Amino acid sequence: MKHVQVDVAIIGAGTAGLAAYHAATAAGAHTAIIEGGDYGTTCARVGCMPSKLLIAAADAAHAIGKASGFGIHVDGIIRRDGREVMDRVRRERDRFVGFVLREMQAIPDENRIRGRARFVNNHTIAVAGHTHLTAKSIVIATGSRADTPDAFKALGDRLIISDDVFNWRDLPKSVAVIGPGIVGLELGQALHRLGVHVVVLGHGGGIGPLNDPEIRAYAMATLNEEFTLEPDAHIAATLREGDRVAIRRAGPNGIQQTDYFDYVLAATGRTPNVTNIDLHQTTLKLDAKGVPLFDPATTRTVSTDGASPVFIAGDAGNFIPLLHEAADEGGIAGKNAAFLALGKQATPGLRRALIGVVFTDPQIGIVGGGFHAMKAGTFATGQASFENQGRARILLKNKGLLNVYGDLVTGRFLGAEMLAPGAEHLAHLLSWALQNKMTVTQMLEMPFYHPVIEEGLRTALQHLDSKLHGN
Amino acid sequence: MKHVQVDVAIIGAGTAGLAAYHAATAAGAHTAIIEGGDYGTTCARVGCMPSKLLIAAADAAHAIGKASGFGIHVDGIIRRDGREVMDRVRRERDRFVGFVLREMQAIPDENRIRGRARFVNNHTIAVAGHTHLTAKSIVIATGSRADTPDAFKALGDRLIISDDVFNWRDLPKSVAVIGPGIVGLELGQALHRLGVHVVVLGHGGGIGPLNDPEIRAYAMATLNEEFTLEPDAHIAATLREGDRVAIRRAGPNGIQQTDYFDYVLAATGRTPNVTNIDLHQTTLKLDAKGVPLFDPATTRTVSTDGASPVFIAGDAGNFIPLLHEAADEGGIAGKNAAFLALGKQATPGLRRALIGVVFTDPQIGIVGGGFHAMKAGTFATGQASFENQGRARILLKNKGLLNVYGDLVTGRFLGAEMLAPGAEHLAHLLSWALQNKMTVTQMLEMPFYHPVIEEGLRTALQHLDSKLHGN
Repeated sequence: MKHVQVDVAIIGAGTAGLAAYHAATAAGAHTAIIEGGDYGTTCARVGCMPSKLLIAAADAAHAIGKASGFGIHVDGIIRRDGREVMDRVRRERDRFVGFVLREMQAIPDENRIRGRARFVNNHTIAVAGHTHLTAKSIVIATGSRADTPDAFKALGDRLIISDDVFNWRDLPKSVAVIGPGIVGLELGQALHRLGVHVVVLGHGGGIGPLNDPEIRAYAMATLNEEFTLEPDAHIAATLREGDRVAIRRAGPNGIQQTDYFDYVLAATGRTPNVTNIDLHQTTLKLDAKGVPLFDPATTRTVSTDGASPVFIAGDAGNFIPLLHEAADEGGIAGKNAAFLALGKQATPGLRRALIGVVFTDPQIGIVGGGFHAMKAGTFATGQASFENQGRARILLKNKGLLNVYGDLVTGRFLGAEMLAPGAEHLAHLLSWALQNKMTVTQMLEMPFYHPVIEEGLRTALQHLDSKLHGN
Repeated sequence: MKHVQVDVAIIGAGTAGLAAYHAATAAGAHTAIIEGGDYGTTCARVGCMPSKLLIAAADAAHAIGKASGFGIHVDGIIRRDGREVMDRVRRERDRFVGFVLREMQAIPDENRIRGRARFVNNHTIAVAGHTHLTAKSIVIATGSRADTPDAFKALGDRLIISDDVFNWRDLPKSVAVIGPGIVGLELGQALHRLGVHVVVLGHGGGIGPLNDPEIRAYAMATLNEEFTLEPDAHIAATLREGDRVAIRRAGPNGIQQTDYFDYVLAATGRTPNVTNIDLHQTTLKLDAKGVPLFDPATTRTVSTDGASPVFIAGDAGNFIPLLHEAADEGGIAGKNAAFLALGKQATPGLRRALIGVVFTDPQIGIVGGGFHAMKAGTFATGQASFENQGRARILLKNKGLLNVYGDLVTGRFLGAEMLAPGAEHLAHLLSWALQNKMTVTQMLEMPFYHPVIEEGLRTALQHLDSKLHGN
């Protein structure tokens, strides 16, 4: 057993952990980073990057089918070569992962420790059987994993999670996606566009991160035009039959139907990796899911016995499980862990305006926490449809609905929800405006080029402005 | 001869004229609007809208060819149906023009006057032979027309301008585009992608609105990978031979070559429509091109004998010939013309941060007047390439270069030039930041999602920030 003493120990070498390592080191702390699994971030290995690669191929196939609307025809067949599609996804994914590996390799050997970490107490970590690490402060950056619901475990290797999709060598014929959340919608639509027979089934009616009833209803109708999306399906049974899965459920007409799929893809959420690091050996306060309570401004956890020397960042904290937030949190956690180790005060870090994007087509965009974050009676809603919006119509992408929210007292822009072409871009413009505390009137004084999707945003803002100022 | 007396007379019923009419009327002025040509704006009839429609079809055809990079193959041929392509362009164009016609028809008959307008003096306009109009103030909103250079007039009906393209029933086999400005680049690339043999020839080396030598050189190389773009061609002769045009020029190797085209498309610029309204009857001061001098803040012209009662807006003023600027100027001109007629003071109107977009692929974006507006020695440049930018690479759109400029003293963002995927969106984000007077450091505190094109912008801003703050 090797005994090591450092200023800061970081558990996990994903996006948050690496950011924490660099921030702690930059702040002058002697820092060790511990990784028990494969190197590479969730985002690069099994998250943002491979999913966007799959979607890019799917959208390319879809666009060919729509080109006839412009007078561009394919005399022949569109062949979606599943092996080639998956080969590009894996090849480019590996390239992105490679950057993370290089970043990891650039860290001096003596600061990298391989093996599973477990807390011994608030200041001590045991790594595998080989190292005993004492640190003045510790950052938990253990990430999360996709859920595999017990209800489906009898399906054996026919039950998959999103991680598995990105290791496919070819595309299957049919997939039932369980869970119309962000991952389920993105992968479900992409696989459908790649020629896979897809149904997306949920429970409770939720669609992605949407909370605005109007936008959710619009998304429901729009996505259902393309593939079967039942966000409140009534699954009676899920049975393995040979190499296939039979799903029996009440169809839209109430009559039971049974459909067969090659795979069931569980996209029911992610679980923070906090259950196997022996948090019970610490004095940290945990929530019902076992996740340490913490202050998002400093990322410092809360302990039962005075100030905690432990920080938490990224998916492990189950706060905002997005790459750019994980990177921010990692930076804050690493800096503050170093400060604490070096006898300085932990300080609040920069938290940005909230932005969320789902890369469906049309895309989903959420700004400022969306409808869910609005307080009844304090806000007005402006709306714009993209069905006849000039630029959207030119591009044959004229499907979409945007709601923007503004404060009835201050006139300030508060947030937005949308299913819209180019939502990723509109969401940036809106989240910058939100962080700049702009009023809706000020936003309307900004440039809008012509013809652009942003003019649809202007229509919604004009509608909101007229409600806020009664003209 | 009918004699009519009004508060405000507006010459021209395009984008600027209509905006001026509505603003003057809203301000309480009795207003007449005069149109001598067809109703409908330059933008809707022969500008932004039909060009974007043609580009949309072209990009759809191009995307099919690129889909194999994703593993999506066309087993057969891609048939670009020229008649269908042009049919959609004209049909959708007519729909957009229809909105303008309806806007025009909503104006009371007695306020609409048809016929060519000519100044009799600063306050009086003769319309065709039928009406003598006296107004307390006047707005010139006569627009502009595409140039047809004398040098090519011998080509007869083989010489065309952009207006003609949008009336085509089918696509020709070959077109030589003269002038790699905004119109020449957009139409040249679009026609190329639609299967027309295209060369784009210029004089002097300019490429669109680009002034930054790095961005211009990059655009030159990138666009030339796809079609022949010679911004400094040496055309020795242009001759009509039967139904074709022979162009003799020095090839890249210096050897003279002769190529044959169905048409020569002159895209050499636009001329303000100010030469046939008898401005010599007024006391307005004119520039060398015969365009009245005016104050962009109020749009009020300058006269040789005291305060002028004449305002000018839109392309006629030759200031910033873009739809959204024409609409702004029209609004300012109409309001101030009304104010003057009603005995109030003309006031400065809202002028927005400068934004320009060229809808090539990759798109060109210019913010804040671009490199041309920067003063040597006062600014630093940050740069980002999109060749390996994550999101761009995912989408197989990884071509592009972005330069952002910041003030060495204040740290403020000043402007940008780019050839980049999604430049229309990046340009919005940047122009809003510019109008909000943000520093580069503040911009880096804003949200950037992952993976998005906007992360390429962040790279350029980080580069700029390190130069401004020397870290």
